[in-house]
Amino acid sequence: MPFFVNIAPPSVGELKSWLLNKGLLIDTPVPGFKGNAVAANIRKDGRIDMGLIVSDTPATMAGVFTQNKLVAAPVIVARRNLASGTGRAILVNSGCANAAFGQAGLDACLNTCQAAARVLGVEATQVFPCSTGVIGQGLPYERMNAKMPELVAGLSPDGLTLPAKAMMTTDAFAKMAQASLTLGGKKITLLGMAKGAGMIRPDMATMLSFVLTDAAVPAPDLQRMLMAAASASFNRTSVDGDTSTNDTLLVMASGAAGNAPLRAKEMDELQAAITLICQKLAAMLVMDGEGSEHLIVVRIKGAASRAQAYQACYAIAHSPLCKTAFYGRDPNWGRLCSTMGALAGRENFPYQQDKVSILMNEAKLVSQGQWLGAEAESAVASVMQESIYSLTLDLGLGEESFWIFTNDLGHTYVNINADYRS
Amino acid sequence: MPFFVNIAPPSVGELKSWLLNKGLLIDTPVPGFKGNAVAANIRKDGRIDMGLIVSDTPATMAGVFTQNKLVAAPVIVARRNLASGTGRAILVNSGCANAAFGQAGLDACLNTCQAAARVLGVEATQVFPCSTGVIGQGLPYERMNAKMPELVAGLSPDGLTLPAKAMMTTDAFAKMAQASLTLGGKKITLLGMAKGAGMIRPDMATMLSFVLTDAAVPAPDLQRMLMAAASASFNRTSVDGDTSTNDTLLVMASGAAGNAPLRAKEMDELQAAITLICQKLAAMLVMDGEGSEHLIVVRIKGAASRAQAYQACYAIAHSPLCKTAFYGRDPNWGRLCSTMGALAGRENFPYQQDKVSILMNEAKLVSQGQWLGAEAESAVASVMQESIYSLTLDLGLGEESFWIFTNDLGHTYVNINADYRS
Repeated sequence: MPFFVNIAPPSVGELKSWLLNKGLLIDTPVPGFKGNAVAANIRKDGRIDMGLIVSDTPATMAGVFTQNKLVAAPVIVARRNLASGTGRAILVNSGCANAAFGQAGLDACLNTCQAAARVLGVEATQVFPCSTGVIGQGLPYERMNAKMPELVAGLSPDGLTLPAKAMMTTDAFAKMAQASLTLGGKKITLLGMAKGAGMIRPDMATMLSFVLTDAAVPAPDLQRMLMAAASASFNRTSVDGDTSTNDTLLVMASGAAGNAPLRAKEMDELQAAITLICQKLAAMLVMDGEGSEHLIVVRIKGAASRAQAYQACYAIAHSPLCKTAFYGRDPNWGRLCSTMGALAGRENFPYQQDKVSILMNEAKLVSQGQWLGAEAESAVASVMQESIYSLTLDLGLGEESFWIFTNDLGHTYVNINADYRS
Repeated sequence: MPFFVNIAPPSVGELKSWLLNKGLLIDTPVPGFKGNAVAANIRKDGRIDMGLIVSDTPATMAGVFTQNKLVAAPVIVARRNLASGTGRAILVNSGCANAAFGQAGLDACLNTCQAAARVLGVEATQVFPCSTGVIGQGLPYERMNAKMPELVAGLSPDGLTLPAKAMMTTDAFAKMAQASLTLGGKKITLLGMAKGAGMIRPDMATMLSFVLTDAAVPAPDLQRMLMAAASASFNRTSVDGDTSTNDTLLVMASGAAGNAPLRAKEMDELQAAITLICQKLAAMLVMDGEGSEHLIVVRIKGAASRAQAYQACYAIAHSPLCKTAFYGRDPNWGRLCSTMGALAGRENFPYQQDKVSILMNEAKLVSQGQWLGAEAESAVASVMQESIYSLTLDLGLGEESFWIFTNDLGHTYVNINADYRS
């Protein structure tokens, strides 16, 4: 028997608090929902690759989908199913995106929905499919369907972490976020999960995200809330400008909380809670990816138009010159100004160098278009060492503003993407 | 321009708090230490695979190593370097374990230490090497050495998360834990990191862990603290009974906190803090691995001897019958008692069925060796649905006790390990 000291074990409560937020545990289950995942051998490594989220009763559904013109089969089916405004289940798999596979792909997708529906005893149109993985391969629906009874038998309220793990591809960690609030005297619980990794393997980097809540809320209101939440979160992240064939954001509201119809102010509170969950997940997406060392909140202020504010954010987020400077912790304000000027030239936006100011967090680097000197630059360079910081660029032209999350571009991105086809 | 709502971005502070504990951020750097990692193409996927932790001044070192008789080259070198009780750097790589490769492996390991030492301007014996990955392959030291200048140039206090990511193999997330305490009026900071995943790919499942602190503490005291911490954490985890060729736990104490020599009570406090960090990391190790759905604290009480308590814990943790019952949430008390009886027969330990009691968390299933009925069993089955719970088995024979962390054994473990050689 080896050396040991007498010491009490940590309590179960301590262990839970240590492991929360690791994507391994959730705080509380969401009333009305169960989850599970199994290994259906879609992936070759034997890991869990098929997950199921089920609402005990028909849930109100809302969805936002990819803007890519090449749309995967599960997106076609989920969009179609959304017409009813209700759903019972989300069926998700990794290992195969089921995209660019024509009618055979659509048939395979419907086949898995029917198999899940049969075992669950619900209508097939109440099952929302989501896939992520390799594009241009057939979905192994027979292997998936064979595992459906095991998948359903293992459903449990604590099993909601498992679909979040089953849909991971290049993700370094499972992304989950939780919140609760009180609406009309009832406790409302929310749980969000997402997959998608910043910079690694663009053609694998589908974003899937599901938000579950026990609130009772009509479908049109839920759709409006979700669109607002998406516009303030996932739609404000930019890594390399790509969209995927499979991007899907779904929200399910079970109504199990039994709240009275929500008044306008309560609707706003629920929308804010859904937005916060989506923002946390979006920030995790941008921070994931081994090559990324910084999460940067790019804020454009003082734009002459909303379009300028919006495009200026993306111009910085998509500029390799700006992004390699972020990687190098280099306060290269000239590149930022040049990017703004180039955009203005291209789009016929106004631009006046002598009105520009630039800050990293609270440290000012440029004022009235002028560099503020070595001491200011040194303070800014120190901010740029941080893992997370904000970059504020004020164009000094008007009142419009916009912001997005982006990250830096370094050696690992090049290594991975240069070598991907080999 | 797509639909959007006007909403302020989250603050940098909010973003940091969301992303802490994800293995992406640390709370505060540890005074006296810097870290970095690069992609040295040891792995084929282009991810970061070589990490470096450096102390600004010679740090006090302590270490605990694998008990496996096949010892990897870096373990031989690190053990040898530990004789001085001081060190400047830990050099860690994934992608290659540098084990079972004879003198060539040892030479390659020393070569990388010398290259790192040269760029850092320190003695090669002050560099502690650690490797994890495939066994029986040569370490690509030339590729590693070519990246040494870039690795050293990028060292920064916030870069300490990067070695934790660079050493991941089958880990689902980077494992980090932090703590701080006040000793002799000085704030002491600790940061621990670990790699290793529960059930996946046993021959890849090396455990590496590093604990950094700015405390000033003599080497013999640090070694004693580390051994106590290991005995209450990593040495109390059991997944499948295997040990690796490369398991290494190192602690570096920079002394940058500038504390006065620690009194006995302060030594105890520092030991407790190191132990807590190691326990958190050990719990993360056991919970990692997709196949594992439960972390179980197995507690044996009332054993007639310390050896019986110790062996009884491992008998349960290594019993496929008990572990599949944990997976199936099955309160199969007969298997637990049978495992105890079999151990007693084999080792000539005493055993009396009518003295045994069994609890899951606070729910009692067996008292005086008797099943407490369907209602008790239902309460216990409900505990076994939890992701984390404790199993207490009181043998009723004496005063000795022991505990360990273990997990369950399910389909994914079988899938992965059955297919591993294919």
